[in-house]
Amino acid sequence: MPDALLDMIDRFAGIGGSPGGGVRRLTGSAEDGAARRLFAQEAEQRGAVVHVDPVGNMFATFATAPAADTTVLVGSHLDSQPTGGRFDGAYGVLAGLDAAAALAAEGGLRHNLTVVNWTNEEGACFQPSLTGSSVYTGKYTPDFALGLADRMGRSLGACLEDIGFRGAEPFPLRPLRYLELHVEQGAELEDKGLRIGAVTTSWAARKITLCFTGVPAHTGPTPMGRRRDALRAAAWAITEFHRLLEAEAAEVLLHWSAAKIVAEPDSPNVVASRVTVWFEIRNPDLAVADAVGARFLAAIGPGVAALGIGQEVLGDEARAGTALDPEGVAVTLEVAQALGLPATAMRTITGHDALALQALVPSTLIFVPSVDGLSHNEAELTLPEDLLNGAAVLRGVLRRFAMEAA
Amino acid sequence: MPDALLDMIDRFAGIGGSPGGGVRRLTGSAEDGAARRLFAQEAEQRGAVVHVDPVGNMFATFATAPAADTTVLVGSHLDSQPTGGRFDGAYGVLAGLDAAAALAAEGGLRHNLTVVNWTNEEGACFQPSLTGSSVYTGKYTPDFALGLADRMGRSLGACLEDIGFRGAEPFPLRPLRYLELHVEQGAELEDKGLRIGAVTTSWAARKITLCFTGVPAHTGPTPMGRRRDALRAAAWAITEFHRLLEAEAAEVLLHWSAAKIVAEPDSPNVVASRVTVWFEIRNPDLAVADAVGARFLAAIGPGVAALGIGQEVLGDEARAGTALDPEGVAVTLEVAQALGLPATAMRTITGHDALALQALVPSTLIFVPSVDGLSHNEAELTLPEDLLNGAAVLRGVLRRFAMEAA
Repeated sequence: MPDALLDMIDRFAGIGGSPGGGVRRLTGSAEDGAARRLFAQEAEQRGAVVHVDPVGNMFATFATAPAADTTVLVGSHLDSQPTGGRFDGAYGVLAGLDAAAALAAEGGLRHNLTVVNWTNEEGACFQPSLTGSSVYTGKYTPDFALGLADRMGRSLGACLEDIGFRGAEPFPLRPLRYLELHVEQGAELEDKGLRIGAVTTSWAARKITLCFTGVPAHTGPTPMGRRRDALRAAAWAITEFHRLLEAEAAEVLLHWSAAKIVAEPDSPNVVASRVTVWFEIRNPDLAVADAVGARFLAAIGPGVAALGIGQEVLGDEARAGTALDPEGVAVTLEVAQALGLPATAMRTITGHDALALQALVPSTLIFVPSVDGLSHNEAELTLPEDLLNGAAVLRGVLRRFAMEAA
Repeated sequence: MPDALLDMIDRFAGIGGSPGGGVRRLTGSAEDGAARRLFAQEAEQRGAVVHVDPVGNMFATFATAPAADTTVLVGSHLDSQPTGGRFDGAYGVLAGLDAAAALAAEGGLRHNLTVVNWTNEEGACFQPSLTGSSVYTGKYTPDFALGLADRMGRSLGACLEDIGFRGAEPFPLRPLRYLELHVEQGAELEDKGLRIGAVTTSWAARKITLCFTGVPAHTGPTPMGRRRDALRAAAWAITEFHRLLEAEAAEVLLHWSAAKIVAEPDSPNVVASRVTVWFEIRNPDLAVADAVGARFLAAIGPGVAALGIGQEVLGDEARAGTALDPEGVAVTLEVAQALGLPATAMRTITGHDALALQALVPSTLIFVPSVDGLSHNEAELTLPEDLLNGAAVLRGVLRRFAMEAA
């Protein structure tokens, strides 16, 4: 029922809906709790049984093969960025639910079907991102994830507890595959006039969190020569970062950002003594992102030291490019072709739960166009026709995998 | 009783005491509440009656002239910066209490004596600073002050309510003068081997709060050319600020800072769309600080615009240099001389409640040395001998003014 899907997406967009038409549904917030409860309700109404694991991942299972212990996972995430769009994540969960319910009604499957809502894909308040899916694959322990703290010092575990979504047991069924439908968050499909993207690989990323350390002092009387101003150093380092990366980008394909900064003690009258900045460098190849990061760190070292400022690396995460299951790409392109939808194999620059899941099971990531490539913005938009096309492809791919031999 | 004063300072330093020997006693916090309750108790034990006004200013009055409606105010503030020292503010309140109690015991005064603890001198969480004293002089309305919000959106009024220090009525007595004893927070007395400073005037300051406005977008896929990165612009502007002011400082005496920055939406994966920076420029002459500020704004305009970033002036406060009461300076120097303490008339670079009070009544500000000029730092230090010298001078000046004709 295509109209039912669009209607369901609209209803979820009302939870944490922001004035500009987007959503603010931060992991562990009251809005996250409300969206989770609605998801459980919608899944149960369609005949699924909902399981919540220790880090809050939600698994809504249709017992389409009650005798089997195997399941095909399909889903995405219901959390958002502070200025998130209404389709980022929610679309994949709800189209997954729509497809699984339809296939359960059709019957004749070899495996069960499980629709998943992964905890904290976005990593807006709790870093690292892809938290729930990375615990599921065994990359992180549940304790590590539950202990992550936001800037107010609240733990992810306490937030999940508060909203009633900290479960006790891991999900018991044996996963065979993972499928995820998502909006592109870029403009490649739109620019090429295509409707469907089958993701082959992801870009790599190096994410460096640097803390610049100085000495607190009164901003008035402290003689200028005696100041050890961590914000001055951090601002200079950010400026250098953009200058250097822009120069590097003349030679090689790069995306980069310094998007988050926290200064302490956070008073206009005290010279900042600790300033933390989150830097990201992305390239298809991790070796390139790594080398650029190393050159950046080497380049700023002397300038920061000359300001009398120390430097601590609080985090340095190398995220390799991931190759997704080639069969999933082939099947996606076949299904799209059968539906008459122009499609392409493509890379993704963004992180997605499917990239985490590939470490555990063959995983497939399907994109639909984003108008203007706009993302993590309230005005993020995918047109209804594209939403329905993507849902149809997802259903076709899910049907194929739910019928294959284990 | 000098030892009683040092002991009292120690006990107050235990409220919000920080590991490094300083204090963290933010306006409206539980620690502020505890320090206020202890102050009321100490004042009442010495025979004062405590009044709390609508913005939380505390007035502890010794009825040394019960028939008169006049009083001499003496005090400072009990709030601190997040990384505050133990003497900044608390010293002036407690030495004031010590002096007023001693004079009340001596008797023979023409006026009452009132020890004041002004609300939110520091302005660490609620800007502007000097809040309570500026309401008292009529510069700000109580509603304006009570409505000030911290970065979590909590109002000063609600915080005062929570700690039980939001009073109902203005302080009824007629103030004749205001006296304040404070640690220097600079190194001039120390460098010159002097014990007492009588402040004549303050430096002027221009305080500009700028918000850089961009567009939220995903830090991964968003094409670099389409990004409107407010943090990139802010970092560049801070770097330019220091470069320009350093050049200006070759010609003219200047202190400057950019100490506080807040970036939104505060996620490592969303290009920052609103970044607010607090800039300060200080010079003895407001015309100079003003002109430097204007040149700074003109200089960064094109560079910020070239990055596609908007700029909003959220605050632009000109704080003129204030000339304090010359008689107070003369009396302070006389009293110091009589006590055999080498003293000087001097300027202050920092803001103080006495500078606000001068708009209402003749005000006097007395400094004692700060070791190394260190301030707004846990390691801020004034030696016991200097603390006692300052207290003796304060008592002498207070006695003189409490005996003069109204």
